[in-house]
Amino acid sequence: MDSIETELASGAGKTGEVSSVERLLLRSFLNKIGNPPVRFVLWDGAEVYASAVSSVGRIVFHNRKSFLNMLLNPNLAFGDGYSDGSIEVEGDFIQCLETLIRAVPREVDMGLAGRVLRYLPNGRANSIGGSRENIYRHYDIGNDFYKLWLDKELVYTCAYYTSPSETLEAAQLAKMHHVCKKLRLKPGELVVEAGCGWGALARHMARHYGVKVRAYNISHEQVSYAQERARAEGLDEQVEYIEDDYRNITGEYDVFVSVGMLEHVGRENYKTLGGVIDRGLKGDGRGLIHSVGRDKPLPIGEWIGRRIFPGSYVPSLCQMLDIFEPHAFSVLDVENLRLHYAKTLRDWLERFDAASDVVEDMYDASFVRAWRLYLGGCSAAFASGDLQLFQVLFNRERNSDVPWTRDHLYRD
Amino acid sequence: MDSIETELASGAGKTGEVSSVERLLLRSFLNKIGNPPVRFVLWDGAEVYASAVSSVGRIVFHNRKSFLNMLLNPNLAFGDGYSDGSIEVEGDFIQCLETLIRAVPREVDMGLAGRVLRYLPNGRANSIGGSRENIYRHYDIGNDFYKLWLDKELVYTCAYYTSPSETLEAAQLAKMHHVCKKLRLKPGELVVEAGCGWGALARHMARHYGVKVRAYNISHEQVSYAQERARAEGLDEQVEYIEDDYRNITGEYDVFVSVGMLEHVGRENYKTLGGVIDRGLKGDGRGLIHSVGRDKPLPIGEWIGRRIFPGSYVPSLCQMLDIFEPHAFSVLDVENLRLHYAKTLRDWLERFDAASDVVEDMYDASFVRAWRLYLGGCSAAFASGDLQLFQVLFNRERNSDVPWTRDHLYRD
Repeated sequence: MDSIETELASGAGKTGEVSSVERLLLRSFLNKIGNPPVRFVLWDGAEVYASAVSSVGRIVFHNRKSFLNMLLNPNLAFGDGYSDGSIEVEGDFIQCLETLIRAVPREVDMGLAGRVLRYLPNGRANSIGGSRENIYRHYDIGNDFYKLWLDKELVYTCAYYTSPSETLEAAQLAKMHHVCKKLRLKPGELVVEAGCGWGALARHMARHYGVKVRAYNISHEQVSYAQERARAEGLDEQVEYIEDDYRNITGEYDVFVSVGMLEHVGRENYKTLGGVIDRGLKGDGRGLIHSVGRDKPLPIGEWIGRRIFPGSYVPSLCQMLDIFEPHAFSVLDVENLRLHYAKTLRDWLERFDAASDVVEDMYDASFVRAWRLYLGGCSAAFASGDLQLFQVLFNRERNSDVPWTRDHLYRD
Repeated sequence: MDSIETELASGAGKTGEVSSVERLLLRSFLNKIGNPPVRFVLWDGAEVYASAVSSVGRIVFHNRKSFLNMLLNPNLAFGDGYSDGSIEVEGDFIQCLETLIRAVPREVDMGLAGRVLRYLPNGRANSIGGSRENIYRHYDIGNDFYKLWLDKELVYTCAYYTSPSETLEAAQLAKMHHVCKKLRLKPGELVVEAGCGWGALARHMARHYGVKVRAYNISHEQVSYAQERARAEGLDEQVEYIEDDYRNITGEYDVFVSVGMLEHVGRENYKTLGGVIDRGLKGDGRGLIHSVGRDKPLPIGEWIGRRIFPGSYVPSLCQMLDIFEPHAFSVLDVENLRLHYAKTLRDWLERFDAASDVVEDMYDASFVRAWRLYLGGCSAAFASGDLQLFQVLFNRERNSDVPWTRDHLYRD
């Protein structure tokens, strides 16, 4: 990576001496963001840091522009500066980012630009057409790209590591089994999946639990891949992949499942999603929604929401309940798996880094750096507790066919 | 019971013939409440019923007054009529009540009186003084009374049956272990308990997990009993029972626990309770709140809120999160144990019925009948899904010291 970074940095240009005012501005900024034990390096090579006690890494600004941008609008400019190579992170990447996140006070004022940004939409509104456009921008950029660093089944959601030493491959299988056990799938049942990615969970449910699945997704690339793979694996009688919006789900089902779609639904559509489930779920049906979440309501991160996941929103648990409470669905079990997502993302980043040369050939150096920051930054956000991962199991309120305890989830 | 009922019923007086208008009113009422498969019997002995197919029991009105009251304000008058003996339930008591609950549509209009009642307070406001008065009216009516039908440890909250055949005694112990395992208590830690009943959980934690406990409760009778019992069991060095309101909790703790108090806190005080936890919990602390809940926000049942638990309120899960989200506590695990509470209450009712002669000598026949209806009605409400039981485990958002999976809860 070093040569790329140097090239990018020099391309952005080292402009002039660092003034004493700029040094003062940096000290004031460090104070605002909680004086993290990280060294900041300006383009003249001098270090500025709040705490001499320990330092987990260095943030290097290769030029004035990236530095001043960061002072004005840190939430967007740090990511943009890292992407174009004018900001560098030295030391353990994820640990450094986690240290920064942990230092920043919750209610810090990120300046006028940051405040304005929070109230501007971060993508197209999630109408049927807008959602398609938002999803296209992340998920349709090429199956070959995702194959480089996801597991063999192409599961692009939080894994479930039964122990911290488990591999990503095993942990994605374990996650799918964990979800299926929670749902207590029975052979012959009909499952609807909202947002099926490359179709791994649908195939897994059909293969191991003997159910039939109708799986919806608006990403054309993903649906094509999923259909082809189901045919190749002889599962196309059991699994039907449908390129359509969750709002257009029809039919009646024993089970509703959605793993990692809610982040793209948009808060304004939670009640609609609840209505879709209510319309499609049988009386003795049950469901599970797996989503990134928050400990309290907060806007989506400015950089991630604009550059990586347009139109996305991460809800608090109470906000998620807007799906369930209007229809009096009964919440049976909520499990928070945030440390599993921190590890999943760490595993993805390791594979991504190993393939970065290939990725750069497919796209460019900026793309590689942006995706490094997305994967590493999200891992840090889950590790620090900025982000949560909630699995919510539910059924209809009058349905008493529930297991006596949860111990069946922990038996083989 | 039969002789008591007959006596009470005749006391209320059988007044006049049943008119055809009254029979018509009853049919219309049955229609409104979803035509439950239960036979209704008026004071002339004639049965009126919606469904001839099956009948799980009979509701007998011994006089006109109780019948007309029920038409006007069923939510209050059914309980009052049952208590004074002018309404009788024949057949399996809990099953009959569950059938009624399951039949009634969620959004049924219970008439003007019912609508007015919903907006009137159901007890004193839960100020420090008001809460004391509300609690006094239920929990200070005599320890000897509760000893007649609770388990030996006097645990007056939902038990945890590791299997449906477990005894109440074993299930209450299992519940306390389940809570302690979720909290991962370590010897020497300091626990604060808000609303400790007769002190069973505090003693259990001290005895089996080697922690120190400060347990708060505003019921004088309960605190006196708890203190005496801790002394007798040599636990008074480890456990301190404090007769005071949760709002007056002082000190810093590793663990916050509250089992069955939230129902008495009042919705308007959830943010205050969150502040109390935030003030008292160490950075690496964790907590658990166990409470009756709802699938969606609803007012407390009119009869139960006025006659049994004045000042109480049962929150939806989203409403419960008002405790946690303002302080960004991280919800780790939510378990719904409603079927366990249905069974706990069934076990309590069985013991209560066996002791009803003694209870009648302590109070009177109306008291016995009101408590039968409370225990049986709540069992039915949990069995039908009208009520939920949520255990919410949480810690501070930046605390990553959480177990990798939940399987430790299901190992011995």
